[in-house]
Amino acid sequence: MFKPNEDYLKLPGSYLFSTIAKKVNAFQQANPEKNIIRLGIGDVTQPLPPAVIKALHKAVDEQADPATFRGYAPDLGYEFLRHAMAENDFRKRGCDIADDEIFISDGAKSDSGNIQEIFSRDSKIAVCDPVYPVYVDSNVMSGRCGDYDKETGIWSNVIYMPSTAENNFSPELPKEVPDIIYLCFPNNPTGTAITKDRLQDWVDYANKNGSVIIFDAAYEAYISEDNVPHSIFECEGARTCAIELRSFSKNAGFTGLRLAATIIPHDLKVKYQGSEVEMHSLWARRHGTKYNGAPYIVQRAGEACYSSEGQAQIKEMVAGYMKNASYILEGLKEAGYTVYGGVNSPYVWLKTKDNMTSWEFFDYLLENAGVVGTPGSGFGPSGEHYFRLTAFGSYESSVEALNRIKKL
Amino acid sequence: MFKPNEDYLKLPGSYLFSTIAKKVNAFQQANPEKNIIRLGIGDVTQPLPPAVIKALHKAVDEQADPATFRGYAPDLGYEFLRHAMAENDFRKRGCDIADDEIFISDGAKSDSGNIQEIFSRDSKIAVCDPVYPVYVDSNVMSGRCGDYDKETGIWSNVIYMPSTAENNFSPELPKEVPDIIYLCFPNNPTGTAITKDRLQDWVDYANKNGSVIIFDAAYEAYISEDNVPHSIFECEGARTCAIELRSFSKNAGFTGLRLAATIIPHDLKVKYQGSEVEMHSLWARRHGTKYNGAPYIVQRAGEACYSSEGQAQIKEMVAGYMKNASYILEGLKEAGYTVYGGVNSPYVWLKTKDNMTSWEFFDYLLENAGVVGTPGSGFGPSGEHYFRLTAFGSYESSVEALNRIKKL
Repeated sequence: MFKPNEDYLKLPGSYLFSTIAKKVNAFQQANPEKNIIRLGIGDVTQPLPPAVIKALHKAVDEQADPATFRGYAPDLGYEFLRHAMAENDFRKRGCDIADDEIFISDGAKSDSGNIQEIFSRDSKIAVCDPVYPVYVDSNVMSGRCGDYDKETGIWSNVIYMPSTAENNFSPELPKEVPDIIYLCFPNNPTGTAITKDRLQDWVDYANKNGSVIIFDAAYEAYISEDNVPHSIFECEGARTCAIELRSFSKNAGFTGLRLAATIIPHDLKVKYQGSEVEMHSLWARRHGTKYNGAPYIVQRAGEACYSSEGQAQIKEMVAGYMKNASYILEGLKEAGYTVYGGVNSPYVWLKTKDNMTSWEFFDYLLENAGVVGTPGSGFGPSGEHYFRLTAFGSYESSVEALNRIKKL
Repeated sequence: MFKPNEDYLKLPGSYLFSTIAKKVNAFQQANPEKNIIRLGIGDVTQPLPPAVIKALHKAVDEQADPATFRGYAPDLGYEFLRHAMAENDFRKRGCDIADDEIFISDGAKSDSGNIQEIFSRDSKIAVCDPVYPVYVDSNVMSGRCGDYDKETGIWSNVIYMPSTAENNFSPELPKEVPDIIYLCFPNNPTGTAITKDRLQDWVDYANKNGSVIIFDAAYEAYISEDNVPHSIFECEGARTCAIELRSFSKNAGFTGLRLAATIIPHDLKVKYQGSEVEMHSLWARRHGTKYNGAPYIVQRAGEACYSSEGQAQIKEMVAGYMKNASYILEGLKEAGYTVYGGVNSPYVWLKTKDNMTSWEFFDYLLENAGVVGTPGSGFGPSGEHYFRLTAFGSYESSVEALNRIKKL
């Protein structure tokens, strides 16, 4: 008799954003006249940049003509995109990354969920707390996380690294050495960043202890300060201990178009039965076996992001979202809140009012201001008493939301 | 110290199509004047149908306007596409499939590689031999297949079901009951089909023995005979034992656009710790955790395949490829070959000449006719002494290939 994957059944039923959607729908039905402002989910709202639209139309026309039609893409991505990315995102910043160390994919969610697969099943992972849920959930599904404690929201076999105001959202290097360390900076959900010196400490720790760092750089386009690294490969020694995840979602607005990349240097090696194994070759094998490449037209759209036209348009779009972030940040300060993030990131992280729990504050804000955010506790136990607002709405809705919050 | 997934390292190094590509490149370099005709890989060559191109342009324009821009797609697919598919591919054929039993994805290769994940790690799989390599390889990567014997090309913990001329390419129901049975009909690589009665036997077997059937219907558009089922859900009782994989690659030419679907009925349930678990919910959880939906513009392209315009254009394209198949089939017969397939499928499967091995015949055909096909043994031990030619080239190249083969 066939049987289900028991590790899947260990996952607690409800996903954070489904719970939020249900609560918001119930409130809207009870109050049909209320205009609800959604600053919860991290989805962009601005349309695709003109350079991207132009590239898409052109590529679609190529697919209409037998002379230029393209079928299966190379599993690891078209050379034109891998080259543009390696050149612009890495080599121009002084990071030593070759074109063939870049693997193109359909999204950073897929990559961050699938990357654990190339590591041993008995690997122990470490995550920041609070954290983007996919890192932990994908490891639960592979049987690495032990048992779940409903009361605390904690998995028995995961190393949690609290990120709170007390440690300036920069977790301590773990005492118990993990095999795999997930880091996301600028951080989702706290919106805080890491300095290059501090990230170098992580790289040194990983190299010294034989850990691998999965570095999620999905928000690097929002960095405004000079001492904040755009890539982990700016750090010395990262080629022997790090994998980086890149996304086109938050910079170029590709959330509905789907494009991302994973960078695995050839120097990331591990000894196995007397010989050295490149983790690059395992990820290549995964792509070759379980994936068939990102759409040609979408890879051309990605390439267009690196044209001078595309770069200028993306910069403008990011600046628009950061204007919102800044307005939200300052508005919350005026309203008496303690706030973090919002400077190198489109996320603002705040302490709830009067020590409310995150979910109490969610209800309070929804019922009294008609504003939806995300409860910090949904990202992990150390997120309790915190709350996330995103800058991905329009400027007008950000202003309106803050006016309502200030009036409370 | 981090460690690799040891199951990945069990996979034999070289992938079938990479080996072919290397051999062909070497031959071309040594014989730069030769015009090589490639009838090896199953990639389409005709451009996307006009209805699809039109839908793509329209959807791209929507993504350029803030009023119609769409960000994250629903994880399981847009309702417009799930509905069109359920209605046209299933309900119109009398198959009882609801819209929400359809999960949209970026490709049947992804789905057929990932689907094993929702089953228990100790599941035993059965595959036809020869077989599309992804079914086995993805299970090897999850540690289900035991050890590989280099001599025979056989995994110790897989049930192989030989499909040869002796059993008319319709394997016997396995004596040892598998947990998971992979079936692909019309078949890749043999190009042969299954009758509805015979498929009903499989469904009855699965229901009786508690097996699940993963039914790959990627080639259903090529069916020309009446008694051949287009979906496993045409069989009685399939809702309690089957999952179906659908693709837009081979019918509508989406190999470079990427779109597919997996159908999991709510009735596919399994007892676990006293309660019933729907496999549908596990796949939904996988999508929700490790995937972020197919691109909006590509889902609109998929929808366009179901318009009357789209349907007519796809029919014409398929008819074109089948004209090639028929030419190849008849030509090989004239040249004295024993041939199979090519009637309900774009693949022609032939017995090699003079009992050559599949690879000997590959070299023979490449060196003497400049024609590239795929060695049957690359798909499994029972494929030895067979060879696959595909009808996805142009009509002219199919004719030219056969003229050369006839002259040998």
